[in-house]
Amino acid sequence: MDFFDCIPLAKATSLIDSSLPELTAEPEEVGLMQALGRITAVDIAAGVDLPPFSRSTVDGYAVLSRDTFGAGEGVPVMLTVTDEVFMGQSTEASIVSGQAVIMPTGGMLPAGADAVVMLEHTERSDHETLLVLKPAAPGENVVTKGEDIKAGAMFIAAGTKLTPAEIGALAACGIDKVKVRQRLKVGIISTGDEVVDVSTVPVGGQVRDVNSYTLAAMLTEAGCHVTSYGIIKDNYDELLAAVSKGVNENQLVLASGGSSVGARDHTVQIIEELGRQKVVFHGLAVKPGKPTIFGMVGRVPVFGLPGHPVAAMTICQMLVIPVVKRLQGLKALKAGCKISARLTRNCASAPGRDDFLRVKLIWLEGEYRAEPVLGKSGLISVMTQADGVVQVPEGSSGLYAGDVVTVEVMREA
Amino acid sequence: MDFFDCIPLAKATSLIDSSLPELTAEPEEVGLMQALGRITAVDIAAGVDLPPFSRSTVDGYAVLSRDTFGAGEGVPVMLTVTDEVFMGQSTEASIVSGQAVIMPTGGMLPAGADAVVMLEHTERSDHETLLVLKPAAPGENVVTKGEDIKAGAMFIAAGTKLTPAEIGALAACGIDKVKVRQRLKVGIISTGDEVVDVSTVPVGGQVRDVNSYTLAAMLTEAGCHVTSYGIIKDNYDELLAAVSKGVNENQLVLASGGSSVGARDHTVQIIEELGRQKVVFHGLAVKPGKPTIFGMVGRVPVFGLPGHPVAAMTICQMLVIPVVKRLQGLKALKAGCKISARLTRNCASAPGRDDFLRVKLIWLEGEYRAEPVLGKSGLISVMTQADGVVQVPEGSSGLYAGDVVTVEVMREA
Repeated sequence: MDFFDCIPLAKATSLIDSSLPELTAEPEEVGLMQALGRITAVDIAAGVDLPPFSRSTVDGYAVLSRDTFGAGEGVPVMLTVTDEVFMGQSTEASIVSGQAVIMPTGGMLPAGADAVVMLEHTERSDHETLLVLKPAAPGENVVTKGEDIKAGAMFIAAGTKLTPAEIGALAACGIDKVKVRQRLKVGIISTGDEVVDVSTVPVGGQVRDVNSYTLAAMLTEAGCHVTSYGIIKDNYDELLAAVSKGVNENQLVLASGGSSVGARDHTVQIIEELGRQKVVFHGLAVKPGKPTIFGMVGRVPVFGLPGHPVAAMTICQMLVIPVVKRLQGLKALKAGCKISARLTRNCASAPGRDDFLRVKLIWLEGEYRAEPVLGKSGLISVMTQADGVVQVPEGSSGLYAGDVVTVEVMREA
Repeated sequence: MDFFDCIPLAKATSLIDSSLPELTAEPEEVGLMQALGRITAVDIAAGVDLPPFSRSTVDGYAVLSRDTFGAGEGVPVMLTVTDEVFMGQSTEASIVSGQAVIMPTGGMLPAGADAVVMLEHTERSDHETLLVLKPAAPGENVVTKGEDIKAGAMFIAAGTKLTPAEIGALAACGIDKVKVRQRLKVGIISTGDEVVDVSTVPVGGQVRDVNSYTLAAMLTEAGCHVTSYGIIKDNYDELLAAVSKGVNENQLVLASGGSSVGARDHTVQIIEELGRQKVVFHGLAVKPGKPTIFGMVGRVPVFGLPGHPVAAMTICQMLVIPVVKRLQGLKALKAGCKISARLTRNCASAPGRDDFLRVKLIWLEGEYRAEPVLGKSGLISVMTQADGVVQVPEGSSGLYAGDVVTVEVMREA
């Protein structure tokens, strides 16, 4: 088999894509504490507004914003303090023009109020009288009912791999059970007369079975349930029995090894016999990874992977893992590292503190763009929209559009 | 508490660093199939040379390289075929000048041979006579005994998080049990009179407990064993009992919430009462995350995290996860996304195939550099040294030093 008989990677990917069934992993329901890393099987909508009531984001006083217009250090606006709201309690309080109510951070906004003046912009001249030293805009220091997530709005799409952020959004919406895809069942077979178990000391030209371990680890990382079928000799009937069992018990089968040409021919023939059709391809114009085989047995994709561990890992990463994602219905892929990205807009920051800016990552013209996710910092939806975090250092007064920033990635875009 | 009373993030990090015990997670031994994602407790050395014998990397003929010098299409060198090596079998064959032995890929090199001529650079004029059409350099198409990993050489350092690549290297060396750190035990407490369980419908100003879920998910992702102690009211004695239990049963405790100033004071007082010393800090010049508390109770670090879910997640990511890594002895951190990096040297590639180049990532002058990991593609050690893979597309004849390439990251540098 020469490189000239082999097909390029892009061709292999498109042949695999057109051979695969749409989805293989069935849905199942799991508790929220068990949902981390699982892939949603359905779109998930909020049953309630989040927050369920308008709330203050600061300690201060609930007011009618128009009462405060024109207020200043020299010209305070005088209001009457009529009530106090306590954290975690509903309030019957309501205000009309000229009145104010004491508010804790997170407290429920009284009826009639449309803004909260921060404590530091007020003075109390006596128990009942409040002096407002700065005007409050409508909505200032308030998160309104449903501003984070609207009741009925889909906030997690089917095919999302659940990270801590989505787990939090589900908790906030009171969703304690989630419909996710079952873990994809993958069978792994090592072949080759020269291959011996890890605990065996190789003699002569024997080598230890590395691929059963690396492939199991890679597929486990990708969220699969892996069954290892051990080491099968280069014998047609034994390999036929193993692949047949693998295909019956799993949704994806990987047979690695068979470094001899004869063993590779066995794999091709067995896939064709069991699948009652030609293999999809045999031989890739890829280094390492040339002796790769792919075929379908019914709805089960079967890969013949190279025996060399580095080649088997490379092809697993480039061809098999995308198949796993597709069969599990995964729409995107997650991460956890640092990348450089170009900021898409100016972001102000107060000197003297570190600001953490949540950003969405967009791959554009060969580089990542970091688009700040706007919204008050208490919003859950900010977490589920963000792909990563940018640190604006303590000494900085902000960042400019076009700046190259370092993003700590929470989710690959 | 104003931002002016708060300490900057860098100061908080260094205060935490100087307060922590060196390591908390104890070592334990696990089987290789269970070792994925675990952190090695000891340096691991190979007991054997890898490969255990010199082997061919191609199909062809084992030769003495000096016999082939000057060979060409028009001036073939004639050798006598004396024997054949079979895959997975040891060989008694040996050659002297003028002789050649038939070799399969991966086969054991016969004594006396120092190179393999590829099949395509030879012709057989008759059963016994080989014509060599191209010279072979000493060592060409051969991986020598111990070239991958030398017996006695440390190939995985203590504090390494085991990825599929290391699992493969361990398998290749016949190491089927690994000494790793036990999962760090982390206790999570939610506090606040306003906080109710996820399955409860909040009334009045109540909010659902989001932090128990997000923090448990983040710590689980970081490899910890998490115990959730549920929701504790803003009551000194109840919180004292919960934190005390948490500290006795875990190696790290996170208490989130207590959005009221009174509740935060409780957390500070409880850490000081149990730890019999002042908290290390209270208040960060960080947004979101200002009301963060840190103190030590004996050898157990205790964090008071903000009640706002986004703030709690941000501080968990920036301060708590680094503590987890330190207490588990983790030396580096792993990943799985795409980044841009600048190639450090020219890399040739044959047009007509996709090449996958393993690279090491180095963060230098504000960008990643991708340093190709050299070595033949069959070497296990290439996998454990590489941080990621660069695809050299099919149509390309290579990449140049200074080119910006996309790296699929397998491990963060």
